[in-house]
Formats: sequence, C-alpha cells, structure tokens
Amino acid sequence: MSDDGSLIAVDWGTTRFRAWLVGGDGAVLDRVDTAAGILGGAGGDFGGTFDRLVGGWLQKQAHLPVVASGMIGSRQGWREAPYVECPAGARDLAGKLVSVISPAGHEVRLVPGVMRTDGDGVPDVMRGEETQIVGCLAEGDAPRRLFVLPGTHSKWAVVEAGRITRFATFMTGELFALLRGHGILGRLMEGDAHDPLTFRRGVDYGSKADGGLLKRLFSVRTLALFDQLPAAGVAAYLSGLLIGREIAEAIAWVGSPHVATARPTIVGSSTLAPRYAEALAQLGIESRTGPEEVVVAGIRRILAAGGLAR
Amino acid sequence: MSDDGSLIAVDWGTTRFRAWLVGGDGAVLDRVDTAAGILGGAGGDFGGTFDRLVGGWLQKQAHLPVVASGMIGSRQGWREAPYVECPAGARDLAGKLVSVISPAGHEVRLVPGVMRTDGDGVPDVMRGEETQIVGCLAEGDAPRRLFVLPGTHSKWAVVEAGRITRFATFMTGELFALLRGHGILGRLMEGDAHDPLTFRRGVDYGSKADGGLLKRLFSVRTLALFDQLPAAGVAAYLSGLLIGREIAEAIAWVGSPHVATARPTIVGSSTLAPRYAEALAQLGIESRTGPEEVVVAGIRRILAAGGLAR
Repeated sequence: MSDDGSLIAVDWGTTRFRAWLVGGDGAVLDRVDTAAGILGGAGGDFGGTFDRLVGGWLQKQAHLPVVASGMIGSRQGWREAPYVECPAGARDLAGKLVSVISPAGHEVRLVPGVMRTDGDGVPDVMRGEETQIVGCLAEGDAPRRLFVLPGTHSKWAVVEAGRITRFATFMTGELFALLRGHGILGRLMEGDAHDPLTFRRGVDYGSKADGGLLKRLFSVRTLALFDQLPAAGVAAYLSGLLIGREIAEAIAWVGSPHVATARPTIVGSSTLAPRYAEALAQLGIESRTGPEEVVVAGIRRILAAGGLAR
Repeated sequence: MSDDGSLIAVDWGTTRFRAWLVGGDGAVLDRVDTAAGILGGAGGDFGGTFDRLVGGWLQKQAHLPVVASGMIGSRQGWREAPYVECPAGARDLAGKLVSVISPAGHEVRLVPGVMRTDGDGVPDVMRGEETQIVGCLAEGDAPRRLFVLPGTHSKWAVVEAGRITRFATFMTGELFALLRGHGILGRLMEGDAHDPLTFRRGVDYGSKADGGLLKRLFSVRTLALFDQLPAAGVAAYLSGLLIGREIAEAIAWVGSPHVATARPTIVGSSTLAPRYAEALAQLGIESRTGPEEVVVAGIRRILAAGGLAR
C-alpha cells in the first residue's frame, strides 16, 4: 500500500508532543501536534498518552519502529536515556537508544541526549537538539559545520565528520523571558512587536567586545529613561542586545575565524530563526536555515545508522 | 541645648523611608525607618508622609535644613531633581538641589542624581549613590578612589579630586532575584543560605576571562543535574557566579591595574558587602568598607559645600 508508514517519529518536549507517521520515502503521511508535553498534558502518564495519541497509526502496522527524542528521555520523562559523550553522531545515538513499552504493548525507543565537559570541568548538555542537528546532516557535507539552535537555552554546536564534537549552551531566551516578564525592564515595554531599527541597535551594543552583559543590560533602562528608545521598541532592543551578546560569546567560544567561514546553519522557529539570521548578517556572518521537519529527518538517520530502518 | 538638631537627613528610596535628626557634631539624635518608600507606604502623598514622619522634629526647630536623597528626586518622586553630569562632587550637587515645600510649610531640598554618557553614546545614571559616595570622602583622600555599591543595580564609581568622574551600573542583583525567583534555576535551589565553598566556586567560574555570562549561567543547571552542586548551595553558587562576573566586567571597565591598587571601598548592606569583599579578596583585590550612616555624612558634606549648614 502506497500510504503505509515506515516509522513513527516523536518530538516529546517539555511543553509539546509532536508525532509524525512517515512513509518509506520520508514523506509525512500524518501528524499529531498537542500540548501533551512532559510538564503539560501528559500528566506523568507517558505510556497512556502515547497510546492515546498515536495508537491509531499502530493498529494497522503494529511493528512500525517508533523513536522519540526530547525531554521524554530525561530523568523527568518516561525513562532516562543517559547522555552520550561527545563526539556523537547518528550511529552513537542509535547505539544508546533506550526502549520502553507502552501499556498497549508498543515499543518506543528514546534518543539519548548528548553531553560534553569543558576545560573548566563544567558539563554541558543537550536533549532533542542532537536529533535536529543529525537531521540537518547530509552526505557530502563539509568536514566541519556549525549549528545554531536558538531558544530558551540556545545551543551552538560544531559538527566534524558527521559527529557533534563540541557545543555550548547560552541562556539567552530564558533571560529575555525573565527580563520581559518580571523585571523592571519589562515595565518599560509596550508590546513585543519586532522593530528592526531598535533590534539592530541592540545587536550592535550587545555584541561589542569591550563590555559585559551585566553593564550593557542597564542601557535598556537608561535609553528609555532619556527617551532615546520608544516604548514600543524596548522589547526588540532587549532581544537584539541579548542575541548580539550571545553571538559575541559564541564567536569567542567557537574561535572567531571559523564562524564567518562556516556559514552557520540556524535551526529554529519561524519567529526566532530570522532574528538570528538578521543579527548574524549585521555582524558580517552569512548563515543558512535548516530544513523543515528536521526531527523526522534526524530520527530517520538515527534509525538507518542503527540498522533499525524497515 | 545640647540635643538640638542641626539638620535632618532623609534617604527616601523605592521601598524605604529613613530619616535622621543630626546634631551639630554629626551625632544622630533620633531616627525614623519605615516602609514608606515612593512605591510603598508613601502612596503618592509625599508631602503628607514627610510631615507625618518627621514633622515632630520640626515643631521645636521649624527652620532646620532638610535634605533628602534617593528616588524621591526622580520623575516618579516628589519632584524631579534633574541629573547632574559627571564630574560631580558635593559642591556640584549642592548647586542643583531642588526645593519642595511640605503641606505643613517645611522646605525639603532634594539631591539630584548623577549621569554620565559613555563612549557609545549610552547614558548611565545613579540616584542616591552619589550621596553615599560623597559621605565616604574625606580631607586628605588619595587623588583617585574607587567605590563599589552592590545592590539590585550595582554601581562602580571612580572619584578623582573629590568628584565622581565616571561610573557604571551592573544589573547583578536584579538578575539574581529574577533567576532565583522565576527561572528554572530557582527550582534547583533549596534555601539561600550562604555557602562559602560553592560561592567561591561560582566566583571562580564567573570571573574567568574567557567566556560570557549567557554561557556560564547554564553551569548552574548542569552542575546540579550531575550532582556536582548540592541543592542547598545552588543559590550561593549563582550569587558567586554573578558577583564574580560583575567584578570581571568592572575590572575591564575601570582598567585592570587600577582596581588592585585602588583598594576599592565597598558601600553596601551588611549581608551583601561581605560577599563582595570575599569575592574581591579571592580575585586578589584588597578592599575596605565604607563608614556607617553614610547618607548622613553625605548630606552634611553637601550642605557644607553649598554653604547651607547651620
């Protein structure tokens, strides 16, 4: 049958549950997208939630491989799929999948996260992003690629010969949300529409080499105080300042000459990814955007690398 | 009469109203300390609040000079006392006092804040700290002194020949409160007791030259995740990390060789000032602590410089 599935891919994070029924050629045959995240609608009953949301797809084809990535494999999830150390590629992840069985008897394989310890002995982790990165890789890739995954906890990752060799997390999105929602800076803001001019100004000031974030953040307040920033543009300015600062920190972390030549790939939401592309371009760095349905592509590659594809 | 006052000093900030009846020799004869801050109990009726809280002192001596510093002189206060540009010393402040009259007919002089515009064209401001700094100055001072005023918005200020020549604000305290109270890092914390060991570790990691705050902040989460940080020490670690980062930023801002030789003076609360002294000492910088009742001393100096002392 032409619309038989060949696998089910699941992206199960903190706030969302998304699943795709994928055909043999990689085409998406059906999809589910709900608020049943591990801290949301799933309510701790991960097996029951799984059977309820995608059990229908498995009635006809009970033995389809099912792979889930994201926080569902964390300590707070269905079962912990322990972190794999860098370097980590599709084959490394495939070798460390952790299986759980749903109440209806379906096997679900959980993708492990990836960890790395930096020179200071401080660990860094990702969970979910490894699958997205793997989903962006292709035969004939450059030997070294750079990825940017904006979000609450932005990740920058270096991939060499198909494996994530190192990465770093930046708390940009979380800081923006805190300052926007709870701090004195938030009270200066009217709306959070994108405002290219004030965003640009924020990127410029935030990315300057000679000053840290703790000092530069106060400019949000003083520029507003002296009417040098319209209230409708304060949120965009803060967003630009934080993203500019993240890029400056990341450039220092990656090693400056590499960033410009690497043409980093941005994998993010349709609102956030263009902001990062704009900010990178402003700083002279050309970027590209990752493909659509990148989790599906990543899970297909992990299954193929593990010899588990049907 | 030996216990006649010579002036009334008021420190009227966002959350507190503090006032002192001061004798001719500078001794404090009486004091008031209430929650009637400009966003608190004063409820917009600044004149009425003033008369109610210190009117008693003025019954006997109706013409005592009264000077108030802090946010009471801001746009949200009783009347705006516009910012004085750096360089600013006691005489500059005295020349720009703004008078208001209370409902009972008492004149209250409001101390202006101080502002400065950095090389990027971004303004910085202080209001209240200028009076504390002036209160720390003395005849025979070194020609150049450095002040650290920790708080929600920490200030570092350079004083040359008795005038504040430049200063910078760091949003350290606000960021700590936001991350502690609202973010995912706060959920990892059990209590916020001081823990010298994890604080020290935070200072060390936060102050390192080769990495920015957005990346380093994530260490709070990962160290807790890998059981390398006890839950009871997470708050102290975050505090150390932010203070360490502030000091690193401030050293770069002041110009490195100066900080160590300046023996900075810390003016802050009895909980925060020792943390900064500890962190500075850990980074090889000897500091000293400002005098008690520094607002009283500052207001006395401003009155004397303006020829307004009785």
